[in-house]
Amino acid sequence: MSAPAQPLRLGIAGLGTVGIGVVKIVQRHAEMLTARTGRPVTITAVSARDRTKNRDADLSAYAWETDPVALATRDDVDVFVELMGGHEGTAKDATIAALNAGKDVVTANKALLAHHGQELAELAEGAGRVIRYEAAVAGGIPVIKSLTEGLAGNAIRRVMGVMNGTCNYILTRMETAGLPYDTVFEEARQLGYLEADPNLDVGGIDAGHKLSILAAIAFGTKVSFDNVVLEGIGCISIDDIRRAADMGYKIKLLGVAQMTGRGLEQRMTPCLVPAASPLGQLQGGTNMVVIEGDSVGQIVLRGAGAGEGPTASAVMGDVLDIARGLRLPTFGQPATSLADPIPAAVSAPAPFYLRLQLVDKPGALAKIASALGDAGVSISRMRQYGHADTTAPVLIVTHKTTRDAIDVAIAALPGTGVVDGAPVALRIEEV
Amino acid sequence: MSAPAQPLRLGIAGLGTVGIGVVKIVQRHAEMLTARTGRPVTITAVSARDRTKNRDADLSAYAWETDPVALATRDDVDVFVELMGGHEGTAKDATIAALNAGKDVVTANKALLAHHGQELAELAEGAGRVIRYEAAVAGGIPVIKSLTEGLAGNAIRRVMGVMNGTCNYILTRMETAGLPYDTVFEEARQLGYLEADPNLDVGGIDAGHKLSILAAIAFGTKVSFDNVVLEGIGCISIDDIRRAADMGYKIKLLGVAQMTGRGLEQRMTPCLVPAASPLGQLQGGTNMVVIEGDSVGQIVLRGAGAGEGPTASAVMGDVLDIARGLRLPTFGQPATSLADPIPAAVSAPAPFYLRLQLVDKPGALAKIASALGDAGVSISRMRQYGHADTTAPVLIVTHKTTRDAIDVAIAALPGTGVVDGAPVALRIEEV
Repeated sequence: MSAPAQPLRLGIAGLGTVGIGVVKIVQRHAEMLTARTGRPVTITAVSARDRTKNRDADLSAYAWETDPVALATRDDVDVFVELMGGHEGTAKDATIAALNAGKDVVTANKALLAHHGQELAELAEGAGRVIRYEAAVAGGIPVIKSLTEGLAGNAIRRVMGVMNGTCNYILTRMETAGLPYDTVFEEARQLGYLEADPNLDVGGIDAGHKLSILAAIAFGTKVSFDNVVLEGIGCISIDDIRRAADMGYKIKLLGVAQMTGRGLEQRMTPCLVPAASPLGQLQGGTNMVVIEGDSVGQIVLRGAGAGEGPTASAVMGDVLDIARGLRLPTFGQPATSLADPIPAAVSAPAPFYLRLQLVDKPGALAKIASALGDAGVSISRMRQYGHADTTAPVLIVTHKTTRDAIDVAIAALPGTGVVDGAPVALRIEEV
Repeated sequence: MSAPAQPLRLGIAGLGTVGIGVVKIVQRHAEMLTARTGRPVTITAVSARDRTKNRDADLSAYAWETDPVALATRDDVDVFVELMGGHEGTAKDATIAALNAGKDVVTANKALLAHHGQELAELAEGAGRVIRYEAAVAGGIPVIKSLTEGLAGNAIRRVMGVMNGTCNYILTRMETAGLPYDTVFEEARQLGYLEADPNLDVGGIDAGHKLSILAAIAFGTKVSFDNVVLEGIGCISIDDIRRAADMGYKIKLLGVAQMTGRGLEQRMTPCLVPAASPLGQLQGGTNMVVIEGDSVGQIVLRGAGAGEGPTASAVMGDVLDIARGLRLPTFGQPATSLADPIPAAVSAPAPFYLRLQLVDKPGALAKIASALGDAGVSISRMRQYGHADTTAPVLIVTHKTTRDAIDVAIAALPGTGVVDGAPVALRIEEV
């Protein structure tokens, strides 16, 4: 008989839904996990703010640490599982302490990676440790693994994604229920779908964190969240959702990262996508990531982006890789070899959707067309709607143009004297 | 200065589109691959049937072997890349020879794995070698990796997939062009979409191979292709495609593997799926795999299932894992620990779609309903179509029932005297 394999011992900091989800998997599937990795996966110690809180799992067999740093550095912990969140303070301190103490780290903390990914990766790799973070991006979808490993033979052309379920829920619900943004936002708040700071969701920050992590892997550059162009969904009206649908599009908070001749482009902005595309068909809180490689073409990954089970599944995928001895640099290649990204000053050309309120008088449409033409924007499709008022909604889909040209055109429109209020301009992403 | 890392040296047998695709990636991306794996990936030797054939890549730097076994056992080859195909003969011999000579193996050969997976896995693991086969299932989609690694924390409930692009092309084309099966089959043949033995495609064998491989990983059982229930798409008429669409469904050649209380169920059969589901929306030659886990819920993976680039991308993913030292047992857990599958004698209950030609006389529908009722089949929805003839098409969607009960009902229908010809019965898979 051979000696039993050494167990892999976890220390889990943070016992919210995800932490408890991880505990449940370890408890429920002990035998299966051992069969798959060749060694038992156990929990040594846990930590959370409030020990007395009633939690949906039996934690009595685990040591309790009040201080996550103490947890992270325990001699009987092999892997520090960081599920506290927040990109400064304890989460960061405990992660650094764990790496310095020779522990591997598994985290669901997108903000931590987006803000300190390079520093942490260098620290980990210098110490011969790994940081794994599948749960930080798109919940249960194995997108980090697919991009870093499965598609590693590809020069990545573009990574896109709907990666904030709350925003997609809000936009979908506005459309299906015909409700304005503010009402649905309030619904989402009451359903507990929003972060304590809702701007993390609806401002695109949370999804922007995720995009910056994917971009680093895809393009071999240092994570640069500061260079993500962020626009939230607060500007999206039910009118735009309906008009876009009329033209065959859906509006999504879409992340796009691509390396262009002008540099690295990272955008997390509301975009129109074709209604019949996989991204256009995505309803509710589900996430989707689209990866385009020079050999593989387009790969689409779809699944739950949040929640106890899906996020814990991703955490466990990382834990099991460590148990099996599968070890890679944080972003797929050594952190010291990652390039400083040169942010693209302008985004790649695209068609745009324009909505404006036309003052209905003779020659008005011609004035619009002329103002757009002067800005170098040419019209692909235009639609004027019937109206009861003195103004009429007009929709325009342009040919491919630049954001700059669109901004020039929008700035010129008030001068025509035939546009009421501020026009709306949204990029149409070709997917 | 540290010594340069040892290159990983490939020997490639089979220089069809996939083999040449691999050569092109190695040549085009030498620098990127080295950055990602920390060592150069090189090609030492190649082999194919016809040396004189004009190929779309410069092979002059590689040794040529006429005998794939000789290639597989060369001292200067680390990884034998088997892209010849076929589950007996040279592909098998060379794979065994490679493993015995201490080489790792990367293959795109689904038939080889489906028929000899257990034997090869035991051989490889006994020799401390790996066999990797991402390219064998669903082309460029990283499904083997997702299932084996990313989702390893889940008890898998069900794996489904559209994994033969040719069949999905035929079914989609029948619908969009309104053409009968035979015509589209002939089109597909002329376009070169069909295997030399078309039954591998339209009979479901090729897709069945893939399903049996996924089932082994998902359920920790030995590959058992012989237990896959196979039905081809030759029985699908344009009428069924249209009628199914009327009821909100699409017809797909759908693979389903699930572990039930009655044992392991593996089916590769034409099924109806909701038109609005990701599987229902899949058009043309694209592949899709749906994985359902107890924690993660439903993960959907979509991409090109064949072709030079996508398949070569999958081969390279495996090669790069080996270059990076990521090594796992063939089916995720040691081959000797895989269970003998107990095939389910009956498939899980489901709603069924029935189409029959009703002889139009008073009380006819009642007789049908009664015959179904006697077989224990209850009706959820029924639709009778207008007709110019003495018979009328009738569509029935049943409540959940068993295939056995449906078969009993179908056997009883001719006895009613009101059914013309043979009824069609197709399972409706709840996705």
